[in-house]
Amino acid sequence: MTQKPNDVIFIGNKPPMSYVLAIITAFSSNQKEVTLKARGQAITTTVDVAEITRNRFLKDLKVTKIAIGTAEMPPREGESKSRMVSTIEITLNKG
Amino acid sequence: MTQKPNDVIFIGNKPPMSYVLAIITAFSSNQKEVTLKARGQAITTTVDVAEITRNRFLKDLKVTKIAIGTAEMPPREGESKSRMVSTIEITLNKG
Repeated sequence: MTQKPNDVIFIGNKPPMSYVLAIITAFSSNQKEVTLKARGQAITTTVDVAEITRNRFLKDLKVTKIAIGTAEMPPREGESKSRMVSTIEITLNKG
Repeated sequence: MTQKPNDVIFIGNKPPMSYVLAIITAFSSNQKEVTLKARGQAITTTVDVAEITRNRFLKDLKVTKIAIGTAEMPPREGESKSRMVSTIEITLNKG
């Protein structure tokens, strides 16, 4: 199986541990780098997930990049304007 | 008045615009660098505050540093164990 150089995991509103497990799985199948991406309220979960993974499970992981940004979301049902939402990307590397 | 080289603003649960105003005030009194610090749910607010300030008000601001970490919080009333909470620091620089 060919390995992608960088695996991307989108963080949503599942419990943090399910994302932690996804990261551990990615690294244990020889992935060198995993990027977590999230927007809105899931930003806090993303930081939690990165910290739990590094502190409790994969202590050799390094945070090699953190980027923040803004994305435009289409208007919700019944609204006319699109909304701006903050985004985050955290890249973890096992070196 | 002597200017501190780096002003720190702690982000909590006030509306984002009140922190945006605090940042604008700091930079307009000749501050070169402002660091936003937060923990827990306020992490998302912190990213919002940084993005709103940069996109709408002070377009020459650069994000020069983003760091994440974990802090230990004392146990709440009626609990016996301390809790771990994620933290973020975002440094804005006007160059």
